[in-house]
Amino acid sequence: MNNQIKVAIVGYGNLGRGVELSISKNPDMSLVAVFSRRDPKSVTTINTPVYSVENILDFKDKVDVLILCGGSKDDLPIQGPLYAEHFNIVDSYDNHAEIPSYFASVDKVAKPNKKVGMISIGWDPGMFSINRLFGEALLPDGDTYTFWGKGLSQGHSDAIRRVEGVKAGVQYTIPSNSAIEKVRSGTRPSLSTKDKHTRECFVVLKDGADAKKVENEIKTMPNYFEPYDTTVNFISQEEFDKNHNTMPHGGFVIRSGNSSNGINQVIEYSLKLDSNPEFTASVLVAYARATYKLALKGDFGAKTAFDVAPNLLSAKSPADLVKELL
Amino acid sequence: MNNQIKVAIVGYGNLGRGVELSISKNPDMSLVAVFSRRDPKSVTTINTPVYSVENILDFKDKVDVLILCGGSKDDLPIQGPLYAEHFNIVDSYDNHAEIPSYFASVDKVAKPNKKVGMISIGWDPGMFSINRLFGEALLPDGDTYTFWGKGLSQGHSDAIRRVEGVKAGVQYTIPSNSAIEKVRSGTRPSLSTKDKHTRECFVVLKDGADAKKVENEIKTMPNYFEPYDTTVNFISQEEFDKNHNTMPHGGFVIRSGNSSNGINQVIEYSLKLDSNPEFTASVLVAYARATYKLALKGDFGAKTAFDVAPNLLSAKSPADLVKELL
Repeated sequence: MNNQIKVAIVGYGNLGRGVELSISKNPDMSLVAVFSRRDPKSVTTINTPVYSVENILDFKDKVDVLILCGGSKDDLPIQGPLYAEHFNIVDSYDNHAEIPSYFASVDKVAKPNKKVGMISIGWDPGMFSINRLFGEALLPDGDTYTFWGKGLSQGHSDAIRRVEGVKAGVQYTIPSNSAIEKVRSGTRPSLSTKDKHTRECFVVLKDGADAKKVENEIKTMPNYFEPYDTTVNFISQEEFDKNHNTMPHGGFVIRSGNSSNGINQVIEYSLKLDSNPEFTASVLVAYARATYKLALKGDFGAKTAFDVAPNLLSAKSPADLVKELL
Repeated sequence: MNNQIKVAIVGYGNLGRGVELSISKNPDMSLVAVFSRRDPKSVTTINTPVYSVENILDFKDKVDVLILCGGSKDDLPIQGPLYAEHFNIVDSYDNHAEIPSYFASVDKVAKPNKKVGMISIGWDPGMFSINRLFGEALLPDGDTYTFWGKGLSQGHSDAIRRVEGVKAGVQYTIPSNSAIEKVRSGTRPSLSTKDKHTRECFVVLKDGADAKKVENEIKTMPNYFEPYDTTVNFISQEEFDKNHNTMPHGGFVIRSGNSSNGINQVIEYSLKLDSNPEFTASVLVAYARATYKLALKGDFGAKTAFDVAPNLLSAKSPADLVKELL
């Protein structure tokens, strides 16, 4: 197609690969380039040409939307404002506390340069955020509950691996079924994050390490594990490699509210994901389409999922959407 | 508040009453009038003044948004285009097959008169439609499943009451648990509406009526009941009055898709509603706020939920939403 939306990726890890897969499922888009800080020869994509990120400005007029697939801690705070000067960008910046200042830093560059900077796209922040907003707007007299999991938590897995004697380890966050049932009942219980989740760890020990000591050190780790009901399972490297090499995730956003006295209304949004990075990538790609349409309309500056009308996410015309999906 | 959004209602049945309740939970809005075709003295609201609909044009400059609470069959096709000439309107037009032509009839009047005509708002069409769109846009390689219930179906209850020997009756549509579980598993089964739902009827017989004959006539009614797994329960008038006087409803929209080979991703949106009309009313009120904001921006014409960015639904500022909910 000549009128495909031309997309490029910066950074090719699990998320970048997910974006490449997702674009192959969207015939109105084409992936023209992957940009990497690594030697392009050392980066193996599925079938997209790889260029050094140093040459990215040569593509200024060949790319409609640039999807930033770097990390929120070190990459995006620099890359977002840097590339929003020259490209419409989409990213998955997910450091919740810092989003307002990141938004401002992207907005300051994108607006005067007539670019769209779509930030914090994915499922949380992203789809979960939208559902928190819908819940609150539709049922103002209510409470919102977010549950995460079952899913692999990168931060908690890293924390396990820093414990002495640990050779390999992963941590799954598991939503508490009894807490979910309480929320679904419409009773609007008070629940802390700790009440809503348990933590399950799978650990491979180094030769000669003391299992009791490792278990205790994990379970008593402040903030990460201490306040939670935590289980530690010791397994072999073989079992670890076989059963813990995927990145499932998901969760629930539940709004429980009262439209009048005694009338309970419960809205529930949930995700069950075999692959966290592939789903996040799918969301990024749909919002890349919206970013392109916003840029065509001249609606520039930093944007979030809250600014995007559902229509903009689809490749179909508004009239077809009304006919087929309304 | 002086800067409250001024809302009025046309038609005061279950839905109109729900709108009145909902506005009382939204401090940025006030309900200035209920318009009725009945004698205003015969209409008892909670605390809103009632006027004859014949005087509605006197309120042209006193109302920001008019919420039409009439029926889709006879009222809205006339009222939508009629009132969109003078007011920003919101309605819950739900005759799916006729939505495109209704949209056109409202658009033709609203646009030249610089009004916003927000149509087909509620949960289906409405929130379910949005979730069908999100599902398709996020997981283009996938299937969408809509389940309704457990809920009272007005059309099927009417059909029961037309059977000879029936004094009173209601019908609940019940989603099939086994079908839902199949869909949640990610296997993307093929399911007809009939596979996805069963029908449960509660019937009070007239004196001397033949139960066997009534049951048979219901179960073999073409289209309504014949193709479904239907249960008929006979109960006393007393039990009917006690247990079947509310209007619960709800349902599920599930998108099951593959982001790559063998990777299943499942998105589920569900509603569990004690009161169908009160929830529909809550959605109408949130979209009345969006309608007001679109009119302020000069974005006139017919609109649906697909045209509304989530931001527009909330009373909070975009910056607060980013800070609190993203």
